[in-house]
Amino acid sequence: MRSCKPLVIPTQDDAPQSFGFSPCEGGVCAAVGMRAAGISAGFRKNPQRKDMALVVADKTSVCAATFTQNRFCAAPVQVSRARAASGHARAVVLNSGNANAATGEPGLRCAEKACALVAQALNCDERDVLVASTGVIGVQLPFEPYVTGVPAIVDALAATPAAAHDAACAVMTTDTHSKEAAFAGPAPQADGSSVTVHVGGFVKGSGMIQPNMATMLCVLSTDAPLTPEAAHAALLSAVRQTFNKVTVDSDTSTNDTCILFATGAAGGEDIDEASPAFPAVAAAIKGVCTNLARQIAADGEGSTKLVTVDVLGAATQADAEKVAFAIANSPLVKTAIFGHDANWGRVAAAAGKCGVPFSQEDVDIDFMGVPVLRAGLPVPMDEEDMLRRFEQPEIDIAISLGAGEAHSRVWTCDLTHDYVKINGEYRT
Amino acid sequence: MRSCKPLVIPTQDDAPQSFGFSPCEGGVCAAVGMRAAGISAGFRKNPQRKDMALVVADKTSVCAATFTQNRFCAAPVQVSRARAASGHARAVVLNSGNANAATGEPGLRCAEKACALVAQALNCDERDVLVASTGVIGVQLPFEPYVTGVPAIVDALAATPAAAHDAACAVMTTDTHSKEAAFAGPAPQADGSSVTVHVGGFVKGSGMIQPNMATMLCVLSTDAPLTPEAAHAALLSAVRQTFNKVTVDSDTSTNDTCILFATGAAGGEDIDEASPAFPAVAAAIKGVCTNLARQIAADGEGSTKLVTVDVLGAATQADAEKVAFAIANSPLVKTAIFGHDANWGRVAAAAGKCGVPFSQEDVDIDFMGVPVLRAGLPVPMDEEDMLRRFEQPEIDIAISLGAGEAHSRVWTCDLTHDYVKINGEYRT
Repeated sequence: MRSCKPLVIPTQDDAPQSFGFSPCEGGVCAAVGMRAAGISAGFRKNPQRKDMALVVADKTSVCAATFTQNRFCAAPVQVSRARAASGHARAVVLNSGNANAATGEPGLRCAEKACALVAQALNCDERDVLVASTGVIGVQLPFEPYVTGVPAIVDALAATPAAAHDAACAVMTTDTHSKEAAFAGPAPQADGSSVTVHVGGFVKGSGMIQPNMATMLCVLSTDAPLTPEAAHAALLSAVRQTFNKVTVDSDTSTNDTCILFATGAAGGEDIDEASPAFPAVAAAIKGVCTNLARQIAADGEGSTKLVTVDVLGAATQADAEKVAFAIANSPLVKTAIFGHDANWGRVAAAAGKCGVPFSQEDVDIDFMGVPVLRAGLPVPMDEEDMLRRFEQPEIDIAISLGAGEAHSRVWTCDLTHDYVKINGEYRT
Repeated sequence: MRSCKPLVIPTQDDAPQSFGFSPCEGGVCAAVGMRAAGISAGFRKNPQRKDMALVVADKTSVCAATFTQNRFCAAPVQVSRARAASGHARAVVLNSGNANAATGEPGLRCAEKACALVAQALNCDERDVLVASTGVIGVQLPFEPYVTGVPAIVDALAATPAAAHDAACAVMTTDTHSKEAAFAGPAPQADGSSVTVHVGGFVKGSGMIQPNMATMLCVLSTDAPLTPEAAHAALLSAVRQTFNKVTVDSDTSTNDTCILFATGAAGGEDIDEASPAFPAVAAAIKGVCTNLARQIAADGEGSTKLVTVDVLGAATQADAEKVAFAIANSPLVKTAIFGHDANWGRVAAAAGKCGVPFSQEDVDIDFMGVPVLRAGLPVPMDEEDMLRRFEQPEIDIAISLGAGEAHSRVWTCDLTHDYVKINGEYRT
């Protein structure tokens, strides 16, 4: 008989706090040298809703970006992917209400013209302007809102928390609230001193949405003087461990975009991957992304719970991820959580279905730190105590496969009547 | 601009009808030499519901079987898998109400003792008796119902459609109706004559279910004199193309079991894989399985629609299957169908997310034979006509990737409020 102590989940030793970083105000404008704005430009029928965002660095800055892996990718993704490859950019213009996807050549021309208009207003090279869109697909993106909107939004640019918030709001679709985060902390220098740097950003995303599909759009910024290579490495590592570990409904979009500006305005030494400051800045970027990723999961369409799934004891990292996503994407697990049901059988079945090697006699499962399965056999549980734990806003599922040392964590939400309602309504 | 004719879906040239087979009565008793029964034995609290089934061949027969690939597998699966490997069996005893899964050594002993009791009553070797269970997991299966139930059910055995129906009913869980099918037709002989053979069976399954999980349990029989190798080959091929192509919620169970008895009572030449009769009998087995698989999809938990997904023009068979399952398992596609929404954007996004190579400019999509996307661009549609088509009980989605010649078909159902209700209710 094995012990009935709760499973021990590895601590996250690369949390920004462990490098002396703390949360701060300002979102994407927390970094020195960044301005933002969000306005209603007319992409949406409702003039009460902001639908255009602009994020601008005071001068051309280091830029790194990642994009959807979906074979269907939208016009703005094609434009921005090509431009971000240079490692530098000045601005990104975003809109909600229309994804400019499945729009062919006219869609590409529209995205390029939008960038040119912004470049003209900012007096910069149009190749330094990126573009991102979210909303309905298969409908041509109108150009008129740019004509009136770009001069207005450039006028509205400010380096304030309020301006950052406006930008975050302008990209919302079925999101029930805007999603921002920022950290400030020390970047250690070679001489032992340190320079204060900031990392911040906003994201939108709450699943793929009615009437067609939505998107994860994220803009991040830092004033740390990252090299293009260091910015790219830090962003990729952060996205892999955060946004790529969030699943609302297992569907990925044509428009997913994540862009990082590094202005260098904090001063200090340039930071490459070998610099003493790199681990701290990378941790801060990952910290902002973790915070934003959890906000996406918690705001999943129709969700009532933020669910964290930890898979321990897998033979390989790939096995751990496969099992974690199988559990997090299981409609049976997700409906059980909605129903406050400590249904370890569904967790076990989801883990067992994905072809990952383990023996059922070695499997342990905890809900909220309470053992419910040990060595493949159920542990008697206090049903009332468990029900109380299921009434909390966060649900933690941990499973140990007893097949190795690898660990993976993913975030998801429950599957509710409202998800079906949001996504099953007649198209209008 | 490409033509806007509907996509051409490959015909199924191995349908049983093309070998002269027709549907017939009798389910698992359609085959000569088979008897069945279903009774209420006390596995369930409700004495109104049958919960024990017995299917018996008049003498020890050829037997082939396939089982769940889930790493978590139930005690009856472990027992039956070992016994079916001999290629022969006499009977299978099934129960609903308790899956005998996650029950450790006591569960294995209970399954073995149940087989021994049946063998005693039938006066056969206990190694020729198989066992299958479905229902709640993690609760020990009581043995008492076997003690009183086995003599009663052996008394009730009959070679009638009514007895076959009783057996089919006794394994139902959240199924809303029993699921049976049978075909009769000619098995060609070497001398040019033919012998009439039958293939029939029943299945249960409608997704994985509250309170823990359910299962696909299927018992098939034929009176064709298949060799053990031919029975195995025909069953595996049929299951691969039918039951393995049904997805209700992407979850697979600890208890999935499919067993085929071949009594040989129809007479004629022994049938191996090289025999002239093999293609016909294999087609009839596949035909029964196709019929049963479609019944499972149509009876998916809470479903209102049977959905057929055809993926055409994939580079490889594996690519075609991957895309077909990605579409069929997409909660966004499934809720759109529930909402009568011809949302090709969600179909495209599901196809694009799974890493299968194609170009979005080559993709065509039809709903119910009506083109909605051609060469990656939307085709204007008659919304009222489309809405009428979505009101039918069967929904057909076809997508061509333009990347090759491979085709795959899967069946699923829509995702509805009732799915969430059935699977999200508090455990009782």
